[in-house]
Amino acid sequence: MPTYPAGHTALLFVDPYNDFLADGGKLWPRVAAVAESVGLHGNLKRIVAAVRAAGLPVFIVPHHRSEPDDFAGWDHPTPYQLGTAKGQVFAKGSWGGEWFPEFAPQPGDTIVKEHWGGSGFANTDLDFLLKQKRISHVILVGLIANTCIESTGRFATELGYHVTLVRDATAAFSPEAMHAAHEINAPSFAHAIFTTDQLLEALQGVNA
Amino acid sequence: MPTYPAGHTALLFVDPYNDFLADGGKLWPRVAAVAESVGLHGNLKRIVAAVRAAGLPVFIVPHHRSEPDDFAGWDHPTPYQLGTAKGQVFAKGSWGGEWFPEFAPQPGDTIVKEHWGGSGFANTDLDFLLKQKRISHVILVGLIANTCIESTGRFATELGYHVTLVRDATAAFSPEAMHAAHEINAPSFAHAIFTTDQLLEALQGVNA
Amino acid sequence: MPTYPAGHTALLFVDPYNDFLADGGKLWPRVAAVAESVGLHGNLKRIVAAVRAAGLPVFIVPHHRSEPDDFAGWDHPTPYQLGTAKGQVFAKGSWGGEWFPEFAPQPGDTIVKEHWGGSGFANTDLDFLLKQKRISHVILVGLIANTCIESTGRFATELGYHVTLVRDATAAFSPEAMHAAHEINAPSFAHAIFTTDQLLEALQGVNA
Amino acid sequence: MPTYPAGHTALLFVDPYNDFLADGGKLWPRVAAVAESVGLHGNLKRIVAAVRAAGLPVFIVPHHRSEPDDFAGWDHPTPYQLGTAKGQVFAKGSWGGEWFPEFAPQPGDTIVKEHWGGSGFANTDLDFLLKQKRISHVILVGLIANTCIESTGRFATELGYHVTLVRDATAAFSPEAMHAAHEINAPSFAHAIFTTDQLLEALQGVNA
Repeated sequence: MPTYPAGHTALLFVDPYNDFLADGGKLWPRVAAVAESVGLHGNLKRIVAAVRAAGLPVFIVPHHRSEPDDFAGWDHPTPYQLGTAKGQVFAKGSWGGEWFPEFAPQPGDTIVKEHWGGSGFANTDLDFLLKQKRISHVILVGLIANTCIESTGRFATELGYHVTLVRDATAAFSPEAMHAAHEINAPSFAHAIFTTDQLLEALQGVNA
Repeated sequence: MPTYPAGHTALLFVDPYNDFLADGGKLWPRVAAVAESVGLHGNLKRIVAAVRAAGLPVFIVPHHRSEPDDFAGWDHPTPYQLGTAKGQVFAKGSWGGEWFPEFAPQPGDTIVKEHWGGSGFANTDLDFLLKQKRISHVILVGLIANTCIESTGRFATELGYHVTLVRDATAAFSPEAMHAAHEINAPSFAHAIFTTDQLLEALQGVNA
Repeated sequence: MPTYPAGHTALLFVDPYNDFLADGGKLWPRVAAVAESVGLHGNLKRIVAAVRAAGLPVFIVPHHRSEPDDFAGWDHPTPYQLGTAKGQVFAKGSWGGEWFPEFAPQPGDTIVKEHWGGSGFANTDLDFLLKQKRISHVILVGLIANTCIESTGRFATELGYHVTLVRDATAAFSPEAMHAAHEINAPSFAHAIFTTDQLLEALQGVNA
Repeated sequence: MPTYPAGHTALLFVDPYNDFLADGGKLWPRVAAVAESVGLHGNLKRIVAAVRAAGLPVFIVPHHRSEPDDFAGWDHPTPYQLGTAKGQVFAKGSWGGEWFPEFAPQPGDTIVKEHWGGSGFANTDLDFLLKQKRISHVILVGLIANTCIESTGRFATELGYHVTLVRDATAAFSPEAMHAAHEINAPSFAHAIFTTDQLLEALQGVNA
């Protein structure tokens, strides 16, 4: 079990938007079954509480908020991006693009620039801001296990970070996608793949 | 079906090492079943021939060649990297770390710097060299579908490239991992997910 | 003289803020002498007009807009950043942090994410957005010659772009700093170092 | 004066090649006057000794070693790169491209991938390897003050590192270029600009 170095460990919370986490959110219907099966909201709540109690910094890692003219004039947005634009997911200025209240940033949290794709590191200041907070170990929670969380995790490892995934503090569109993320792919790039219980136990050794 | 712009499209061949592709290679036993089921060698041969005939540039994207003291003094190599080091996969100076003869670089090909992890872009000059060849569209073939190919593909999209995967010009440790790569994850970041036949048809419209 | 490829050339306008360019701006007194000696405003006006007439895309590359609590909790902001924060240069919500009217973004322009330091590429989506517009050749104008323009230019070359500087479409705190930027350093990384007249002549060959 | 954190500080030695540092090296005649005026070799020797005595890690940051066909087929190498290729500076396999014996890597040193341009971070694994050694503070010495050292320093700051330059442990083609590097530009991005004496004093507080 990894030891999390005091003063060098942070929580990365990916996409705590109403559209993902709130009843009535645009993507909630697609993640609800998996989210409820793993106890997503309760686990996120326990993790955030433990992390704040330990004095670990929290980074909010948000996806681009949709705007009506997104991708106008782009040579080759992905089909996935075009779908997101069509659905105006996390639309700027809309309720769905607001923070889910329970997991909204608190004073002292770092809000990273919005990412265009799946990785919270790509085209943002996440790596830079982690360095300015002396972070070497990142714990990834939020949505979606096999897209944004996995891309952010793959990038984190390539950029030299120690990466922890939490298998019941994320969700996906299907159990199969959760399995792909945690059983098939994560072992090739992550340093630890925990349950929330395991993470909370590991964090007990940290005094920030 | 995407149109591949003449003068702006390249083949990225990931890890054409004996250890992956040759009878007797260290990892060949782990990929052989999938490789043979999709006709990997034959498809790679057809693609490379078509790409060279069309005058498209070929980039060789190689994984780090193992050395005995790899990761000495590193704070947190991944378990996967430690396993690779223990097995001395693609060992420097060994037959397994040599190019598989049929797919060895030809004069005029570009050999990218070796990558430490899964992505051919991370910590290498791949993005830079693609720009110096005016490439905007990349076609990814080679090993392994859900690790190096997928990480290279995810990075390529985040870096602004148009990304094509070829589902029968790669392999993995299990059919399940192939399914995860092409059916579950790739639609979230790739622009095209082709068979070799579909790719060859699409390439007929390119005059480089 | 370089040939600018139609459809692949863009203008990068760095920091067109009132604090830099307007009478009454916080940094205008420090750049005014050089700006007036080279005819900065007139040259920028001619370049922007020519670029728009040729149909070349314009990218606005803005520095971070200061906020009161910038750098709180950072381990090691630079002395220069601390000075900028103290002076609240380009303060968010202030007139000085608004676009200088004559060079404000127009419909169809791309506004890049704000940069924390000197380079418009670092920790932003500039490279990504240039790729989505198929840009290989960048022309840099704006402020300041030896800091943001030079850092953006150095990064652009390292990232694989063709880089043009325009010696009388920028300014600095002293003639000596202009000399350092254009005579001492730029020849080591830039592809072309033009006057506005030379640039306009070179652009006549472009049909976008 | 900055405090260098034990276990998080490293020396980056840029381009310790015979062509730069040895009598008979291809570029030695161009840097000799400045190098001798600041006491380059003696200062580098004192710094390397102090750094090794303090147990700080040493990273060797080497420029690309020239090969005859460099830049063949590239769309837009810089004029400076073409000059380097023409002169075959640091030629692969030549004496000039070998390490200057006194500053050759020692067991335990990290040799970074070669860089194509001026920045030791661009298109290499420097950032990644620094992270795996837990480094947040970098001290830059070697050649040339206003090109490779300055580009590496500018990148280091943008990537989130604390950056120290040492004004008499580097050299340039002219005193004017040294002045530009240390008096005009460095204050905009560096955290400390020391003499060798000042650095050695500051390092006395480090126990690695």
